[in-house]
Formats: sequence, structure tokens, C-alpha cells
Amino acid sequence: MTESSTGVRTRIVLGQNNYGKSDVRLFKVFREGERHDIRDVRVDVALTGDFEAAHTRGDNSALLATDTMRNTVYALAKEQLTGSVEEFGKRLVRHFVKAGPTVASARITFTQHCWERIKVQGQEHGHAFSRQVPKHTAVVEGDGRQFKVTSGIDELYVLKTTRSGWEGFLREQFTALPETNDRIMATVVTARWEYNTDELDYDAVWSEVYQQILETFTDHYSPSVQFTLHQMGQAVLTRCPVIERIHFSFPNKHHVPYNLERFGIQNDNEIFHVDPEPYGLIEGWVERAR
Amino acid sequence: MTESSTGVRTRIVLGQNNYGKSDVRLFKVFREGERHDIRDVRVDVALTGDFEAAHTRGDNSALLATDTMRNTVYALAKEQLTGSVEEFGKRLVRHFVKAGPTVASARITFTQHCWERIKVQGQEHGHAFSRQVPKHTAVVEGDGRQFKVTSGIDELYVLKTTRSGWEGFLREQFTALPETNDRIMATVVTARWEYNTDELDYDAVWSEVYQQILETFTDHYSPSVQFTLHQMGQAVLTRCPVIERIHFSFPNKHHVPYNLERFGIQNDNEIFHVDPEPYGLIEGWVERAR
Amino acid sequence: MTESSTGVRTRIVLGQNNYGKSDVRLFKVFREGERHDIRDVRVDVALTGDFEAAHTRGDNSALLATDTMRNTVYALAKEQLTGSVEEFGKRLVRHFVKAGPTVASARITFTQHCWERIKVQGQEHGHAFSRQVPKHTAVVEGDGRQFKVTSGIDELYVLKTTRSGWEGFLREQFTALPETNDRIMATVVTARWEYNTDELDYDAVWSEVYQQILETFTDHYSPSVQFTLHQMGQAVLTRCPVIERIHFSFPNKHHVPYNLERFGIQNDNEIFHVDPEPYGLIEGWVERAR
Amino acid sequence: MTESSTGVRTRIVLGQNNYGKSDVRLFKVFREGERHDIRDVRVDVALTGDFEAAHTRGDNSALLATDTMRNTVYALAKEQLTGSVEEFGKRLVRHFVKAGPTVASARITFTQHCWERIKVQGQEHGHAFSRQVPKHTAVVEGDGRQFKVTSGIDELYVLKTTRSGWEGFLREQFTALPETNDRIMATVVTARWEYNTDELDYDAVWSEVYQQILETFTDHYSPSVQFTLHQMGQAVLTRCPVIERIHFSFPNKHHVPYNLERFGIQNDNEIFHVDPEPYGLIEGWVERAR
Repeated sequence: MTESSTGVRTRIVLGQNNYGKSDVRLFKVFREGERHDIRDVRVDVALTGDFEAAHTRGDNSALLATDTMRNTVYALAKEQLTGSVEEFGKRLVRHFVKAGPTVASARITFTQHCWERIKVQGQEHGHAFSRQVPKHTAVVEGDGRQFKVTSGIDELYVLKTTRSGWEGFLREQFTALPETNDRIMATVVTARWEYNTDELDYDAVWSEVYQQILETFTDHYSPSVQFTLHQMGQAVLTRCPVIERIHFSFPNKHHVPYNLERFGIQNDNEIFHVDPEPYGLIEGWVERAR
Repeated sequence: MTESSTGVRTRIVLGQNNYGKSDVRLFKVFREGERHDIRDVRVDVALTGDFEAAHTRGDNSALLATDTMRNTVYALAKEQLTGSVEEFGKRLVRHFVKAGPTVASARITFTQHCWERIKVQGQEHGHAFSRQVPKHTAVVEGDGRQFKVTSGIDELYVLKTTRSGWEGFLREQFTALPETNDRIMATVVTARWEYNTDELDYDAVWSEVYQQILETFTDHYSPSVQFTLHQMGQAVLTRCPVIERIHFSFPNKHHVPYNLERFGIQNDNEIFHVDPEPYGLIEGWVERAR
Repeated sequence: MTESSTGVRTRIVLGQNNYGKSDVRLFKVFREGERHDIRDVRVDVALTGDFEAAHTRGDNSALLATDTMRNTVYALAKEQLTGSVEEFGKRLVRHFVKAGPTVASARITFTQHCWERIKVQGQEHGHAFSRQVPKHTAVVEGDGRQFKVTSGIDELYVLKTTRSGWEGFLREQFTALPETNDRIMATVVTARWEYNTDELDYDAVWSEVYQQILETFTDHYSPSVQFTLHQMGQAVLTRCPVIERIHFSFPNKHHVPYNLERFGIQNDNEIFHVDPEPYGLIEGWVERAR
Repeated sequence: MTESSTGVRTRIVLGQNNYGKSDVRLFKVFREGERHDIRDVRVDVALTGDFEAAHTRGDNSALLATDTMRNTVYALAKEQLTGSVEEFGKRLVRHFVKAGPTVASARITFTQHCWERIKVQGQEHGHAFSRQVPKHTAVVEGDGRQFKVTSGIDELYVLKTTRSGWEGFLREQFTALPETNDRIMATVVTARWEYNTDELDYDAVWSEVYQQILETFTDHYSPSVQFTLHQMGQAVLTRCPVIERIHFSFPNKHHVPYNLERFGIQNDNEIFHVDPEPYGLIEGWVERAR
């Protein structure tokens, strides 16, 4: 019980809280004969539960050290990172809920780098790779019995030079932008999606979503980023029945025709300035009706 | 209505969505006589409402262009950015809810840079400044009648060389960390808080919170980051009755004594390696009991 | 002539200086029929010459504004960016040396993003692209008659899981690192090279260097980063007679086997920690003997 | 001797090369009674010499491992980091030139963070600090007997709201920028300087340069960034006789009045857009005449 400066007595309590280890950089090599496979993934661990004794009385006896969490990620990776990071995430959640006496649930966040085999005279090499964008992201949360799995794509930068416009929008006192039916459309795709089942091949679905996003980006005239967002969502949900809903975040990377007319030069949609900011940001879920 | 590859018919619908302009870099000079004041703030605008026509039919007629949002931020700043960004945020929310025919609510996010007057022979200069860390953050959301205001501090890097430890924590199979009762404690404070009133001087409260965080950081032996988090929350809530609750996010910037003993050199807590990662991350709310 | 606080009179003069525009983001579309091509390049312009009047007397009359330089890059791109950025750089140098009355020489720096055509059902799309790493860099300097051209590769992250070691190095008082004949080798290649002729297809040579670096990375057991650096240089110079010398900068991205033995788990070069820092940095030129 | 694809035989040789350890993060606490002092510094080590055996024959026997260099930085810091990083750099150079049998010279680069004591009720605290910008940089190079020392300032962001203009510059075909005699002037100062003596208090000189830069920024109407660069150089050289020459790199952080007139709003130099790019970049040396 404390007394505030206005004389009002209030009891101050600990609210929702969590702690964990972030930015654990795990790399695993699968050495099966001549052909090695790799997983390169950043892992964040966050635990929730009853940690009040540490916060209010300095009693750490129920706390798993965050250094222990790091060790655990590496140690469990040895036997239990055998396939997708999503499946590994479930195993980590199960472990951490047991490991801490007052842990109620755990959330594991993955950012997986994609590597491509180096090609030597057209042939994929057995153990040499070059790193690609984009990234495969995933979040696995749970209490050890039930899990919520979210997968995603990050840093997929796509652009098309035509078949996109922006017309017929609301015009009012602060509207200065001209309309156009032929502009460059560019965005860095951040997507994440949720599943309606626990039984699936996460890596295969990820590749299918990735391909659907790329193909849908190309297959229609886009009257707005919003319209393309919805088209992509439809394509993904149609092709991937295990996905319940998908969210996209699309920064509109504006490519603005540079004003050359003032110098007596005609610019027929050829010369553009890539505007770093400010950028339009369009976000939304596309989902199955319930 | 689409048919999935498994033959299941599902109706696919648009879910929660929003759009807006991010990273609008607004700078305002207040030229009152010889002494100028400035506001330097990055603004993000996000609108929610009924934007389904644009997503599903390519009908943009109800959409405010994100370029219009940018113009609006600058235009309204002229008359309506007279004090705190929080008050300006309320005015922007009111404007945007009116401006778009199908807008239901708006969220304005601010990241304000702090500038200090340059001192010339001990005297504060009237119109010359140097930029500081940390930043003043704020989020204002609302439907035009009611507002939720969150204020915050970002990038406040603090460190103390002693009066911090980490002992008595749980030891199990993957625990390797030794205990210590004298370590360096360092973190980059990210805080945000909510209010129990609309009537307050946001800038004055921000300064008070900032000072309480600094002073509380120094005033106790810290048995854990969690304990210090709770102490800081208590100090802030005790001194600032208008604050209902406060959230902290504390990356534990580990300063690890470097192993010099293997070279025959004693290291009495003098020589440290600043570990860039992985870092413990401790987060939590401290709030008034209801 | 000024008098210093120690009573020593010294004349203070302007030394080497340059000015220009940095981070000009140029994007050009080549719309030849159905198949569009693009160039996406960041341009920095720096001019040297006699700019003393501006520095010492505030006389700007000989200065080309940096805004003018930006306009020039976009304006000349329309007709003169027809092939490689290296050739465009020569044209920009010629222009700037003429444009400023006291300009003696110009240096144009390019950072070109690489884009790949999106594949739709195995076919390359005509106008849709996704952005890749690495980058194609180039610097063109000259006085308008003679040019020094340097081309390069940046952000090419490569890794191999075996066929690399680090043994037989000097051991002394502060040496603690164990030897190994099987480690992960990983680096982010930054390369730049100079030519012995002005007559060449810069883009074709760039692709050849890129491929040689990848292939050489895979084709030998590496006893040190230094040895691989030299092998790569030899391969490039052997295959590309127009290249006079090549410089590599190789941060050694350490992948350290994680110590699992303390937890009773054997780690047969499977589980690694990706150490973000500090990193070994190995740099050198490989060149033709004169 | 290799044969190129055009049949030209060329001998390929190793050119200039260096290697070392980058991004060593050293932190030292000076525990003298109640009042602790700290040094927080990133260190890069680079060695040059005869390393040909490693490059061409895979013979590492003369190579100091970069891990050894890291250990050395921490180990020597214990006794030899007693004052400025510049003095510590000389000791490291001397050590490394001796430590490697074929090392000819060493270059040590420092980036030192500045920390301020936290004030509690107006009093500076003995062991609690908050991190500031800017940074103190330094480079020490040498062969063990002679040293070249360069000190510097990085990330000092300054701005003034008036007393700056840009007029009378060259107008030609691509010039569109209007003239102004009242604009915002803002830059992020990067400075580095060289000395004409080895006998000095590096930290005291650094503080004096820092203060001169700030004060000179305020004390004149600036007709160009170039003019201010020269003024600052004069001020520093006049006040600091031990400095032989100083180099500045000034990105022109453009603050552009936002066009509100098109919306019927007058903008009297009040509302600005902070343009992130492209930016003018002005660089130059100011030095003593020889």
C-alpha cells in the first residue's frame, strides 16, 4: 500500500509479465553422407507464469536462468530439431513448461535464414551454400498440451513495372496526388498465417504459400495494394486447406516518376525515384468464414 | 465461394484490416522572439473501418490516399501542434475519423526525438540544438470521441558497475551459470504507460517518469532485473497518480568478466566483455490494483 | 593568420576537400515490348576542384548545388544509362567536370541491387521481379578524359559445412584457441577489382567473377581464410584477363561448436553457435606481377 | 605462372594485405573507492607484414590467431588501459609488432562510447551511468617505434533553426532549387584530426574540440556548409595548437519547408519535412600551412 502525492492510497501490483532469452543463434548441420543439410535459425524464448516472488521479494528460487534457456535450445536441438522449426518449437514449449516450477506457458519465436546450395557447373554442391532472402518465421505458443502455431515469410521484396494503378480514390481538401493507371508496384512482403490442424508438413506448406504469393503478385491488374492483398489471401487459402487465415503487411515502396519535364525531357514512365519514406502501409487478414 | 484442393468448400472473407502512412517526418519550429523551440517527430497513421469495397471489388472511392494522410499531418501541425504530441494525436484522430467516410477509428503513433540546447560559455543557446537519446514515444487511438493514450520512453541505456547480483536461481540439468552478488547491470529501457485521466500535462509527466526511472535504477541492490522492474514501476506509480499502469521491456545487456585467469592474470571485476547476444529479456506491467 | 593560445602564429588553410550528393535512388525501366528490364541503383556523386571561395569567403557562385547533381543523375539516366553502371559512370563524370566551372574531377559510386524475374509455372515473368542479395558495386573516377573504374560484389554470404580447418598457427602467452581440421567456414564476401583496359563488357565480367568466387569457395580444403582468399584471386585473374587486380575483405563469421559435453551430450560438429562478434577480418589484394 | 584464357601468361602475386580481429567489445571499470569510472570501447585490430606463406602455401606457423588478438586486448587492458584509448593504442601496437614474428605494423581502431553519470537529486552518482551520443573515435598505427594517431568525433547531430542560407550558387540547365537566406541547418558531425606532437592529454583535447565545434556552429551566419566547415576548422586549430589538421564530413540533413500553400495554408518557415535522402555530403580538411 503506497500513498500517492495527491493523497490517494492505491495498492500497486505486478501485472502480466514474461521473461526469456532472445537472439539465440542456432546452427545445425545434418551430415548424412556426402550431402549435408543445414538449419540456421535465430530463436527467442519467452516464459509466462507465476514469477511474483522474484519481482516483489527478490526470491529467484523458481526462476530458470535465461542462460539455462539458451543452453536448452542448443541441447535439445541435437536430438529434437529433426524437421521444421515449428515441430521443434512444440518440443521446446513442452520442455520449458516442465522445466520451470511456476511456468504456465512458453512462446518460442524463430527467424530462419534460407540458404541455397551453390551450383558448380550447373550441379548443386553437397555442402556449400549461399544465403538468400527472404526468411521463414514461426511462433509456437502453448501450455505443453495445446499449441498455437503461426508461420510466416519476411523480407520478400517484389516489384512489377506495370499492371498496377491507383485511381478513383476519395478527393478532399488535403488531396494532391494525381491518379494513375500505370505505376510501379513494389512491396516487402511480411506474411503470417495460422492453421486449422496440427497435422501437416510445415516446410511444404511454407513453400506453397511462398509460390502462391509470387504467382498471385503477377496474375492480375492491381487497382490498389488492398486488392492484391485480398487476391493473395484467396489464392493461399484456396491452395492450402490447412491454413485458417493469413495476415499480410505491405509497405508500399513508392517508385515516383521523376519530374524531368521541367528540364525539357519527357519521362514516359522510365525514370523513377525510389522514395524511402514515408510509405503507405496496408495490413489485413484474409480468413475462412466461420 | 472457392473450392479447396481437398474438395472442402469454404467461403473466404476479409478479416481485420487497417492502412495508413508510416514514417512521416515532421519538424516544427516555434519562433517566439529570439528563443526558438522545436518538435522533431516521426508520425505513423493507421485507419480502421469498412474498406471491403477496395479489397474485394477494386472500388477505391471511400479510401483516403495515404499521401493525403501525410499532407494532413503537416497541414494540421501548423495550427494544432501547440503542445505535446499526445494532444496533437487526439486532434489527428478526430480529423481522420471525419475525413474518411468509412473510417471507424484511427491510431497515431509518435516517435519524438529529444534535443538539448547547445551551451555556449555555459548559456543555453536560443536556436541551436544537439540531438540526444532517448526518445519520447506515444500512441493515441480512438473513434473521435474516446481516446486511449499510451506514452513511453525508448532507447534509454543505463548501467551500474555494482550493487547488482543474480543468485539463488533454479539449478537443473542445463544450468551452467555461476552465481554472483556483484555484477554489472545494464539495460536499454523501453517503457510505456497508460493514464487514468485525460486531463494532464503529458510532457511534465514524461519528465517525471524519466527521472524516477533513473533514480530508482540507482537506489537499491538489485537481486534480479525483475526486482528492479517492479521497483521502478512502484516508484513511477507512487509519484505519478495519473498513471494507471506501466510496462517495461528490459534486455539484459550482459557484461561478462573476461577469463584472464587462464593467462595468469587476476580479473577482480575490472575487465568485461560486452556480449551482444543472446540477451535475457525481461518484460512486465506494474499497475494499480482494481 | 591566427594566433594560437600558445602564442604560435600559424596560417590555417583549406586542404583536400570534396562535396556532392549521396544516396540518390535511381530506378530505370526499359520497356521493350512485353519484356521489361530494370536497373535499381543507389548513386553517390562527389566533386573535387577549387572550391576555396565558398569555404573561406562564402562565395557560392562556382558551386553546383547538390540538388542539381541529383537532378542530373535522373536526367542523364534517360538517354545515357543504356548498359552497365560503369559506362553510365563515365558519362556522369564527363558531364560533371564540364558542368562546374572549377571542378577538376568527379567520383561516382554505385550500389546496384540485383533482381531476379519471378517464375510462374517455371517460366520467367516479363515484368515482375524479386530482389536478391548480393549487390553489384562500382566506382568511376576521372577528370573527364581518363577514368579509373573499380567494380565489386557486396553482401554475398557463403558457408560450407566442412573441408575447412585452422591448424599450425603460432601459439604464445595469450593463445587459447584449439586447433581444428574440420570447421564451418562462412564469410560475407566483399570484393572489388580494377581493370587493365577500358574496352570490356562490365556486366559479363561481373557475372564471371561472381561465379568464380562461388566455385572456388567449394573446390579446395581451406587451411585458412587467407589461403582461400588467394585461391579466389588466382581463379578470377586466370579466368578474367581484363582484371588487373582484385581485393577481398572477408569477415570470418565464426560458427562455434556449442559445448554440450558439460550436459552429457556429444556434439559431433552438429550444433553450432553463430557468434556475431568479434570477428576475424582478413583482407588482401591478389594481382598481376608487374 | 598461370595461363589466361586469352593465352597471355601472367604471374599472379599477393598484394597488400592485412588481417585482424574486429568488434572486440571491451569494458573496464576503475574501482577507486566509492566513485567508479568506466571505459566502454569497441576495438579493431589489423596487422600487416609478411603473411605470404599462409596465403600461398597454407603455412599458418607465423600467424597470430585473431582469437589471440582478442585475448590480448582484454589482457593488456588490465594493466595498460589507464588513461586515453590513444595511449592504450600505442601499447597495443608495440605488443602486436613484437608478438607476431612477421608483423611489420599494426593499426588499432577504437570507437568509445560516452557515458554520463546519472544525477540523483542534482548530484552525480558514483557508479550509475546513462549512455550518450556522440562517440570518441581513434586510430593508432605504427611499427612499434613511430606512431600515427588520429582522434575523432562521430554521431554528433546538431541543428540550428535559423542563421543559415544557400544563395548565389551556380544556375544551369538542371538547377531547380530556389535560393534561401533563412533555412534550417542540420548535420551529423564526423570529425577526425591529426597531431603535431606525441605529448598531450588526448581526452582533454577531445573535449576542447567537441566544445569548439558546438560553439562555432552557433556563432556565425552560415552561407554554406562549406563555410561553416572552414570556420570550425579554424576555431579548432586556433584553440588547439597540438592539432595539425582536422577533417570534417558533413551530411546535409535537409529540412525542407512543406508545401502547404496548395492547401491555402501559409508556411512561414514553421513546418518542415525531414528528408532522409538523398543528402548533400560536404567533406574537407582544414590544416596548418607548411
